Amino acid sequence: MAQIKIGLFGFGVVGQGIFQVIQRAKNAHAEIVRICVRSLDKPRKVAADPALFTTTADDILNDPQINLIVEVIDDAQASYNIVKKALLKGIPVVSGNKTMIANHLPELIEIQKNNNVALLYDASSCGSIPVIRNLEEYYDNDLLLEVKGILNGSSNYILSRVFDHKDSYAEALAQAQALGFAESDPSFDIEGYDSLFKLVIITVHALGTYVAPERIFTYGISTIHDSDIQYAREKGVKIKLVAQVVKVSDEHFTMFVMPEFVSPSKYIYSVDDEYNGVVIRGECYDRQFMFGKGAGSLPTASSILSDVMARLHDYRYEYKKLKYVQKPDYTTDIMLKIYARYSATDVLNILKFEKIHEQYIGEESNYVIGSIRLSELLEKRKNLSEPDVFLANIPIFFLNKDN
Amino acid sequence: MAQIKIGLFGFGVVGQGIFQVIQRAKNAHAEIVRICVRSLDKPRKVAADPALFTTTADDILNDPQINLIVEVIDDAQASYNIVKKALLKGIPVVSGNKTMIANHLPELIEIQKNNNVALLYDASSCGSIPVIRNLEEYYDNDLLLEVKGILNGSSNYILSRVFDHKDSYAEALAQAQALGFAESDPSFDIEGYDSLFKLVIITVHALGTYVAPERIFTYGISTIHDSDIQYAREKGVKIKLVAQVVKVSDEHFTMFVMPEFVSPSKYIYSVDDEYNGVVIRGECYDRQFMFGKGAGSLPTASSILSDVMARLHDYRYEYKKLKYVQKPDYTTDIMLKIYARYSATDVLNILKFEKIHEQYIGEESNYVIGSIRLSELLEKRKNLSEPDVFLANIPIFFLNKDN
Repeated sequence: MAQIKIGLFGFGVVGQGIFQVIQRAKNAHAEIVRICVRSLDKPRKVAADPALFTTTADDILNDPQINLIVEVIDDAQASYNIVKKALLKGIPVVSGNKTMIANHLPELIEIQKNNNVALLYDASSCGSIPVIRNLEEYYDNDLLLEVKGILNGSSNYILSRVFDHKDSYAEALAQAQALGFAESDPSFDIEGYDSLFKLVIITVHALGTYVAPERIFTYGISTIHDSDIQYAREKGVKIKLVAQVVKVSDEHFTMFVMPEFVSPSKYIYSVDDEYNGVVIRGECYDRQFMFGKGAGSLPTASSILSDVMARLHDYRYEYKKLKYVQKPDYTTDIMLKIYARYSATDVLNILKFEKIHEQYIGEESNYVIGSIRLSELLEKRKNLSEPDVFLANIPIFFLNKDN
Repeated sequence: MAQIKIGLFGFGVVGQGIFQVIQRAKNAHAEIVRICVRSLDKPRKVAADPALFTTTADDILNDPQINLIVEVIDDAQASYNIVKKALLKGIPVVSGNKTMIANHLPELIEIQKNNNVALLYDASSCGSIPVIRNLEEYYDNDLLLEVKGILNGSSNYILSRVFDHKDSYAEALAQAQALGFAESDPSFDIEGYDSLFKLVIITVHALGTYVAPERIFTYGISTIHDSDIQYAREKGVKIKLVAQVVKVSDEHFTMFVMPEFVSPSKYIYSVDDEYNGVVIRGECYDRQFMFGKGAGSLPTASSILSDVMARLHDYRYEYKKLKYVQKPDYTTDIMLKIYARYSATDVLNILKFEKIHEQYIGEESNYVIGSIRLSELLEKRKNLSEPDVFLANIPIFFLNKDN
């Protein structure tokens, strides 16, 4: 039986989780032989032999006994440097860094191919839910129509507190931070970037196409107000931050991240608190739903362990769908129906709606329900961040340009 | 790119579904080149070129261009003969026959090993939900504690009608048969055998141990009465037919199929109608939930397609966990808390309860809530099939013999 000797980069919450999980997995045949950290003196909850630690990346990269690098540092640029260097040296890597992967995936795929080396990253999307592996292996066909879900636990926790416990948004955010579900700078989670990067990675494995993050409309929950929550409650729906990639025709797919009104009949309606939930819809199997803990030390670590164990059998992503001859192209030329709430900002002057279905003018705020092209939203994105503006998708229909 | 030339055995509901799905999957590189059926004259909804059909199995088994056999006939003995013959000839097989696989898996694993040939059967357990592949590949470690779920769509449909629509059991069964969710002889589904065979297969891939079906306590829903339904409603729970395999200690696991009182806080509570739902619980990732259509022509066919596509990349199950050194052993020496309803049959005389927690004596029927060993239930199984007896698990606790 092969033995995996791991060089671990990062010993924060996730790194310590990996250390614990590998100790518990008696049949894993894996061992952490070196740990590279930024600072040796930082106090840590999980105790590891001090002799394992180094602050020099090359102590791992040049150690001939190490046959796998596990990288869970939270600096995307440093992560990129280490992963690229390791792959170029032919050392396989398991990474959980969604920002780094989402921004560099085309290059990293090339390097994997040219150097015949594996980069696995299932933990980067939805923690312990095996989305990437299933899209790559099990849904290895062109029947797939849609992947849609709640991919960020922090923002979902906040929205759950607001909807189910009637906390204010500020209370919910503070509570999320106190519990460690949100970073001290929570914008990465609540502005939708975390979901966006996961969606970029998912799309490569779902439809075989890489779309750069900046080409994708992304809108978070930071400007949600009581009036939006009240509106949703009156309609009997919840507001969830939803990421989705959808085939809109045989030739095109679209993708975006934005708050959405979710009715009780939808699977993701009951994905609450810090959980993630992903719906995979296909032509013949209808909808599959996967649900689990999307973040946290041990769930993420157990996902990393799955990738580590896969290396025992020389597993690598084949990126089979990248080679498909008939692949749909990315488009933002689709019609959405959205809810746009505003007060001082003149949203109707900023956004060109194709049709206004409803308009409400109140003393404190106004809203419209209107049909609008996704391309229009993407183009005007920078004008839609004012604190008095909030947008949400109303998933009634997708219309492509032909109807 | 390799090309898969399929010899298909069986052209019933699932076989026709496979034919349709492979036509739709443009990038599948797979083609059905021969179809073996029992009768050429049977009218079929899906039209296929008559030249494809044969009634002679050897027309497929001896055809050198065929590099994959897909077997979806509903006769377990005929299925066994064909699959064994094919594997011994070195032809890989995809099968959906849970009865055949659950009863012959040890031998089929040996044949795969000795002949270096693959047998894939993800469709045999939970239709379109990728349980086997995930247990084999993604949960390829010893952190797994439990796999528990609703594995049979027909019985679940019946129970849903009874609980959510207040149909009588007889009405619900008739409705299930009318919709094609239940066979004209529904005992396979409602007596729990379908769930049992799936559980046997799941356990091999979950914990690395094969347990023969006859060693596993299996109890269905055919004797459920209005009084049981009323009891469950009063307690605010649903009755579901649940199959489970659970590690009860580091050294032991147990498994059984029986109706269970399911409270609204459980994931499987909301698995209704003909759907299946599986909860996978592990030491570090807590609970993962997978949900989808467990049966039906196209969902099953799309699962078969996943196995077919996997053969493009020479995928086979490695049965890694069978090789684990530290594996838990099967035990029935665990304590359960059950509900036992009866009228004429003297259940208290048949079953030796360790403790009676509640006893109700009524004019029409009686029940007890008591603690009992699973081994006792298994031993007395044949005496518990009287129409006036119904048992259900109350999943409050598992006690092994030490506490």
